[in-house]
Amino acid sequence: MNDRSGQNIEQECEAIARRARAGSRRLAAMDADERAKLLRAMAAGIEKSAGAIEQANRADMEAGKKAGLAPAMLDRLLLTPERISAMARGLRDVADQPDPLGATLETIRRPNGLEIRKVRAPMGVILVIYESRPNVTADAAGLCFKAGSACILRGGSEAAQSNRAIVDAMLGATGDVGDAVQLVPTTDRAAVRALLQLDQWIDMVVPRGGEGLIRAVAESSRIPVLKHYKGVCHVYVDEAADLEMALRIAVNAKCQRPGVCNAMETLLAHRDVADVFLPRFFEATRGHKLEIRGCERTRAILPDAKAATDEDWTTEYLDMILSVRIVDDIEQAIDHIETHGSRHSDAIVTEDAQAAERFTRDVDSATVYVNASTRFTDGAEFGKGAEVGISTDKLHARGPCGVEELTTYKYVIQGRGQIRE
Amino acid sequence: MNDRSGQNIEQECEAIARRARAGSRRLAAMDADERAKLLRAMAAGIEKSAGAIEQANRADMEAGKKAGLAPAMLDRLLLTPERISAMARGLRDVADQPDPLGATLETIRRPNGLEIRKVRAPMGVILVIYESRPNVTADAAGLCFKAGSACILRGGSEAAQSNRAIVDAMLGATGDVGDAVQLVPTTDRAAVRALLQLDQWIDMVVPRGGEGLIRAVAESSRIPVLKHYKGVCHVYVDEAADLEMALRIAVNAKCQRPGVCNAMETLLAHRDVADVFLPRFFEATRGHKLEIRGCERTRAILPDAKAATDEDWTTEYLDMILSVRIVDDIEQAIDHIETHGSRHSDAIVTEDAQAAERFTRDVDSATVYVNASTRFTDGAEFGKGAEVGISTDKLHARGPCGVEELTTYKYVIQGRGQIRE
Repeated sequence: MNDRSGQNIEQECEAIARRARAGSRRLAAMDADERAKLLRAMAAGIEKSAGAIEQANRADMEAGKKAGLAPAMLDRLLLTPERISAMARGLRDVADQPDPLGATLETIRRPNGLEIRKVRAPMGVILVIYESRPNVTADAAGLCFKAGSACILRGGSEAAQSNRAIVDAMLGATGDVGDAVQLVPTTDRAAVRALLQLDQWIDMVVPRGGEGLIRAVAESSRIPVLKHYKGVCHVYVDEAADLEMALRIAVNAKCQRPGVCNAMETLLAHRDVADVFLPRFFEATRGHKLEIRGCERTRAILPDAKAATDEDWTTEYLDMILSVRIVDDIEQAIDHIETHGSRHSDAIVTEDAQAAERFTRDVDSATVYVNASTRFTDGAEFGKGAEVGISTDKLHARGPCGVEELTTYKYVIQGRGQIRE
Repeated sequence: MNDRSGQNIEQECEAIARRARAGSRRLAAMDADERAKLLRAMAAGIEKSAGAIEQANRADMEAGKKAGLAPAMLDRLLLTPERISAMARGLRDVADQPDPLGATLETIRRPNGLEIRKVRAPMGVILVIYESRPNVTADAAGLCFKAGSACILRGGSEAAQSNRAIVDAMLGATGDVGDAVQLVPTTDRAAVRALLQLDQWIDMVVPRGGEGLIRAVAESSRIPVLKHYKGVCHVYVDEAADLEMALRIAVNAKCQRPGVCNAMETLLAHRDVADVFLPRFFEATRGHKLEIRGCERTRAILPDAKAATDEDWTTEYLDMILSVRIVDDIEQAIDHIETHGSRHSDAIVTEDAQAAERFTRDVDSATVYVNASTRFTDGAEFGKGAEVGISTDKLHARGPCGVEELTTYKYVIQGRGQIRE
C-alpha cells in the first residue's frame, strides 16, 4: 500500500476493519474450549514455522543494520530460537487461563419479574499499535483472541517481515476465524491515522510503547484508547515506619530494575525519621552508584546529594537516579504525590494503621501499597497472567490489564412478556 | 468572561478545574454519612431559595421569549414550584441510595502473602455539559457528589441565571467542600474547548443532550467521554414467538413513548409468522396513526406501508414511524441488527430457549432482551436510581449509567515488607 494514494489506504483500512469485525463475530460465537484449542494450534503453528520466522527476522535484522539501527533496537528486533519458543509458550499459557467470557457479574431481580444479568462479553475489535519487538505480535494476538475479540496488529516498520511470518504461522491454524487476526500490510503512517478514525468498526485501541506513541495515538483517535503513561512512583517512609522494612522496600523499589514504570522515582521521608533513615539508605545503595537529587533538608543530611529542581519531582528517570524529599507529615507526602505523581504506583511504609488507611484512601493512584515494594504492579504479580499494559486511565481499567480488561459487559434481560406501563 | 480574550478564558478554566480538583479531594476524604448529610442540606437549600430560583428563571424565560426560543425550548427552560420541589426530592433520593465508595470488588491473595484488594474509588473531577433544562444542574451535581467526585457544570446559555441561582442555593449548604461544585461562569464556547483540554485535572466528561452535542464533545476532548449516542432499537419476532406476547411487546416498544432512545425503531419478523403477525400488529397500532415503512415482502402483506429505503434501517425516528423487515431466519435478524443497529437495546420474542441464547450471545448491544419490551433500558427500571445517561460505549460503562458508573476503582495492596525478587 506504500505507493498508493491516501484514499486507497483509507479504503484498505476500512476493508481490514470490516474483515476483523466479521472475524470477531465468529470468534465470539465459539465456546471457550474451541478458542483455547485454536490458541494451542497457533502456538504449534509458530513452532512449526520457526525456520520461516527466523529467516524473515534475518531479513529485518539486515535491513535494520543497513539503516543504522542502534544496538539496543536491534536486540529488541532479534528473534532467537528461544524467543520463538517463548512466543509459543506464551500462547499456551494464555490458552490455559480461565475463560473470561460469559461470567455473570451481577444479577438484578426487579419487582416486575425481569431478571437483569450483567454478563462479561467480548469487546469486538481491538487495534494494537506497537513498536519494534516482533514477539508482541503473538502476544497481543493471543490476548485478544482469548478475550473473544479480533485484533488488528500494527507493528513497527523495522519488524515488518518478522511480524508477517509470525501472523502467517498463527493463521495457518485458525481456519475460518482467521479474519480475527489482521496484520496491517503497510507501515505507512497514514494507515494508523485512517484506522484511528474507524470507530464504527474498531472498539478499542491499545498502544504498546513509549509515552510519545501513546500520546500521539490518544490525541488523534476517535476510538477509546487504553493508555499507560509514565510511572512517577513514590515510596513514603512514615514517622511510624519499621525502618528495616523501609530500607528493604526502598532499595528494592529503586534498584531491583530501575528501567521499568513501577520503579520508585521519588523517596519521601518523614522529618522525624529522615536523620536516621536517609544515611542508611545512602549506604545501602552505594554499590548501585545511585545518583540522589534532594531537597534542601535532604542535602543537609546527605551532603553528596545534588540539588533537586522542580522538574525532578515530575521526572520518570527509568535510571539509577532518585529524587528525595523530606516532608513534615503524611499530609505533605500525600500533597506531594497528588501534585507531582502520575497516579501509577505509590507506597507507604508504616506500622500505624490509621496512617495506612489515610494514605490508601487519599492517594489517587491505580495501585497504592502499604508495606510493600511498588515493583509488584504487574499483570503476572497480580495473578492476571500476561498483561497488555498498566493503565493510568481512570475509566474502564486501572493498573495492570490482562485478558479481563480487554472485555466489556452487556445486560441480558429475561422477561415473560413484560411491557412498560 | 465573555468579553475577555481566549487566553484569559483558558486561565479561568484551569483555575476552575484546579478548584474542582481540590474540592474533589476533600469530598473523597469524607465518609458516606457526611456526603449524604450534605446532599440533604443541598436539597433544603434549594427549597429555601425557591423564590430566588424562580426569579432567576423568570429572567431567563423573558430573555428566551425575546430571543424567540421555540415553545418546546421554553417549556424545557421553565422552572415551576413543582419542578423546583422535584429537584430537591431528587437530591434526597440520591442521598438515600447506598454509598458506592469503598466497596471491595475483588480480593486477590498472592502466594507471597500480598493481599490485593480492588476497591471502588471516586473518579475525581467530572465535567457535565448539558443543554437547556436547568434541573440538570441539581441532578448532575447530586449524582457526582454522591459518587465522591467534584463536578464542573456547563449548562446552556439560555438557562444561565437559573443555573447560577440553583448552584448558589446548593452551595450555601456545602461548607468547605463547596469547591466540589463548580458552575462555569460563562457560556462562551471557548470555555468548553478549553475545559476539554484539561485532562490533567478533569477525569471524565458527561455530555447530556442530543447526538450533535455528544459527537462535538467526543471529537474535541482529550478527556474520556461517557457517550450515549442514538438508539436504533429492534424487536425480532421469532418463528417460535408467542404472538400474543410479541404483539404486546412490539406495540409497547413502539407506541408507549416513541420519542425516547429505548423505543423500537425497526420491527423484524420471521417469514413464517409475518403473514399472521404483521396484519395484527397493523390493526393494534391503528389508533396510534403509526407510519410503517416496510421491505418489499412487508408491503406484500401490508399494502398501506410505504417502501423503506436503506436509510430507514439506520434512522432513529423518535416518532410514530416504524421500519419493518421480514427475515428468513434468526441469523438474518442478527445480521440486520449488527449491520444497521446502534448497539443500544434489542429484543427477541421467542419460546425457543436456544434461539434466545443465540440472540443474547450474538447481538452486540448494551442491553439484549428476551420476551420483554426494549423500553426498560433506563436507570430507574434497572434499580440504579437516577441515571446520567445510557452509554453506547463499550469501555468503562455500558447501558444505563447511575452513580456507580461515575466511579472508578483502585488496587490497595497490603504487605508485610514484601519486595520483588
